[in-house]
Amino acid sequence: MPRRPRSSGRPLVTLTSDIGAAYAAQMKAVLAHSIDLGRVVDLTHDLPAHDVRQAAFLLHAMARGFPAGTVHVAVVDPGVGGRRAAIAIRCRDGSVLVGPDNGVLAPLAEALGGPEAFRIDLGRLGVRERVGTTFDGRDLFAPAAARLATGTAPRRLGDRTAFRRCALPSPKRYPRGARGEVLHVDRFGNLISDIPTEWVPSSPEGLSVTVGAGARPRRVPWTSSYEEIPRGTIGALGSSFGLVEIAVARGHAARRLRAHAGTRLSLHWGRPPARQ
Amino acid sequence: MPRRPRSSGRPLVTLTSDIGAAYAAQMKAVLAHSIDLGRVVDLTHDLPAHDVRQAAFLLHAMARGFPAGTVHVAVVDPGVGGRRAAIAIRCRDGSVLVGPDNGVLAPLAEALGGPEAFRIDLGRLGVRERVGTTFDGRDLFAPAAARLATGTAPRRLGDRTAFRRCALPSPKRYPRGARGEVLHVDRFGNLISDIPTEWVPSSPEGLSVTVGAGARPRRVPWTSSYEEIPRGTIGALGSSFGLVEIAVARGHAARRLRAHAGTRLSLHWGRPPARQ
Amino acid sequence: MPRRPRSSGRPLVTLTSDIGAAYAAQMKAVLAHSIDLGRVVDLTHDLPAHDVRQAAFLLHAMARGFPAGTVHVAVVDPGVGGRRAAIAIRCRDGSVLVGPDNGVLAPLAEALGGPEAFRIDLGRLGVRERVGTTFDGRDLFAPAAARLATGTAPRRLGDRTAFRRCALPSPKRYPRGARGEVLHVDRFGNLISDIPTEWVPSSPEGLSVTVGAGARPRRVPWTSSYEEIPRGTIGALGSSFGLVEIAVARGHAARRLRAHAGTRLSLHWGRPPARQ
Repeated sequence: MPRRPRSSGRPLVTLTSDIGAAYAAQMKAVLAHSIDLGRVVDLTHDLPAHDVRQAAFLLHAMARGFPAGTVHVAVVDPGVGGRRAAIAIRCRDGSVLVGPDNGVLAPLAEALGGPEAFRIDLGRLGVRERVGTTFDGRDLFAPAAARLATGTAPRRLGDRTAFRRCALPSPKRYPRGARGEVLHVDRFGNLISDIPTEWVPSSPEGLSVTVGAGARPRRVPWTSSYEEIPRGTIGALGSSFGLVEIAVARGHAARRLRAHAGTRLSLHWGRPPARQ
Repeated sequence: MPRRPRSSGRPLVTLTSDIGAAYAAQMKAVLAHSIDLGRVVDLTHDLPAHDVRQAAFLLHAMARGFPAGTVHVAVVDPGVGGRRAAIAIRCRDGSVLVGPDNGVLAPLAEALGGPEAFRIDLGRLGVRERVGTTFDGRDLFAPAAARLATGTAPRRLGDRTAFRRCALPSPKRYPRGARGEVLHVDRFGNLISDIPTEWVPSSPEGLSVTVGAGARPRRVPWTSSYEEIPRGTIGALGSSFGLVEIAVARGHAARRLRAHAGTRLSLHWGRPPARQ
Repeated sequence: MPRRPRSSGRPLVTLTSDIGAAYAAQMKAVLAHSIDLGRVVDLTHDLPAHDVRQAAFLLHAMARGFPAGTVHVAVVDPGVGGRRAAIAIRCRDGSVLVGPDNGVLAPLAEALGGPEAFRIDLGRLGVRERVGTTFDGRDLFAPAAARLATGTAPRRLGDRTAFRRCALPSPKRYPRGARGEVLHVDRFGNLISDIPTEWVPSSPEGLSVTVGAGARPRRVPWTSSYEEIPRGTIGALGSSFGLVEIAVARGHAARRLRAHAGTRLSLHWGRPPARQ
């Protein structure tokens, strides 16, 4: 039985996008006609523009901790107005995910489990009039979220459909190392990799990290906190995402290592690896 | 009879400004003494500094969709502490607009209709003590909004007054074209013009757009979605504002065309225009 | 007897950090399990990274106006995961401040008065499982705030402790001048000094300001509003923080004067000072 937020019994609506505050405000105007805006939570509206993979990763990280039954809306939608479907995904705990069918919802749907997707039909939603075709966030996803948050079942919004998975990278695991990439650079410049922290032995006998194609491996400490990394030097630790993080203590790892989302990254533990 | 938000019956308060989050927080501290902050909605606090015209355009776009009876506060106020009046504008649907009398409220007031303005009087507001003269958002507009949101009629805040209109540009319409300017560049770099989408024939026989003084006209497709624009090339379409938009598919039109708010823009449809 | 917000009787929770929206969303996910998110207010999540002094100054400015009994959470925490304690400070009016014991809470605690600090104990908080050690905002401060906002007394979270004061600068006062520094540059580029406005005579016979080591004093007007400063020139006035502000009318004082937080600044009133 899904847990609901204790305080109210009415589901929350979260909003995540790359559209910025001025467009997001227009989504809230729509929602305000149906639900109390105290139930509407901005996760972020400043995701990198049109980067579906980053958005999929961050939506999963931000939204998975919310109470069961929450309606999560994601608007990172470079194909808006085109052929991609608009979908609502019902998860096992009663949460519903709303957004374009471009993969942005997929990692969260898989984490919450039991996903069943429905293709949102504007007619069934009761939307008659639209201004332009460039802003489904306001004209389609917000009305759908309003309906879902006031008790409409996802299957009432349209026919059952398959939905697109997200091509999040697949890191590779070796006996004494792993190979993956930088999934996300946070605002401190820390590199969040796609390599699960649990793959690294709790006390590895030395750790080397290689960031970027053609780079040389660097010996770095494997620490349990930023504080153990000497100021200004590079270290590795388990991030709050459950993934290995490369950080420069009180510095900016992405600038230091010229890394960004997508940069190749590998780890090696045990004896130092041979030169590449 | 004005519609109120269904969920509560109590009016919302929206906040729009160029002052940033740290100053906006001080406005919320004031409001928190009188109303539930679940009723207070940030539209944006990151408008371009001191740009009253941009703010007037965006406030209108963001706020006009909110339920009747909402109190909209706008703090884009380069003349703060000076001779400009502080006003509250009552609209036909019961919404009230609060801000400086510098034109920022005017397009929204006109869209909501029946505007009657009142000059806010600090004495009647009950404000006795102020720290500095540089932050009427906190010291005057927030207290006024708190009063309005708890049932005080706008006319109780001060005497009836005229209010300043906003010099939004007036685009010109020709039999086979239109001339206007860029009103706004969104965070994707799309150019939002001041030319109504409805001026353009639904299937124009060719479309040329000229961006910038002295530029040459470019033939661009008139599309119904971003997806129809070949990736990386320029196209025109009807924006979600009801105004013609110039976009580069998955690119940044403003950088490509060296355009910004205020750049001249003209459209020509039918046969290609002669060289200028 | 502490005043509570009139509208609900239940305390608000404010969130202030340098962690950005994506991490802050994960704090709200935790809070949503215990309290209505309509009671949770973002002050800002975009403070300069790891700058405890700026954060301490701004937290004080933003939070001190909130109703008595509010729970204020601050996450500017370069030492996260290390030896610094996590604390909850109970103030005289019933407000509780939650954050790392690095000084960030101190100016607000002193302003609200009667502070008593308790070292937050993860065990007493009931937190069993953690992912990484890098995000106490989500894993420790948010659970603590949820408990406090639902009625747990601060002393139930851990043992009484001393807390670290913040090294905010101490300006010096002279018979006809003052010496201090720039505490904060706001988003308009205005310089907020640490010199109290009340130190400056209400009508000084001339004012000189010196910004930066080795700079020459400049005669500037002491005004009561931005509007009195001739456009594009430098002036001084009483800021909304109760501190002397240096501004360029419709310009950017920090860029013009090459100043930033920490830049030395002195004032001299009366006759012009001799060359330095």
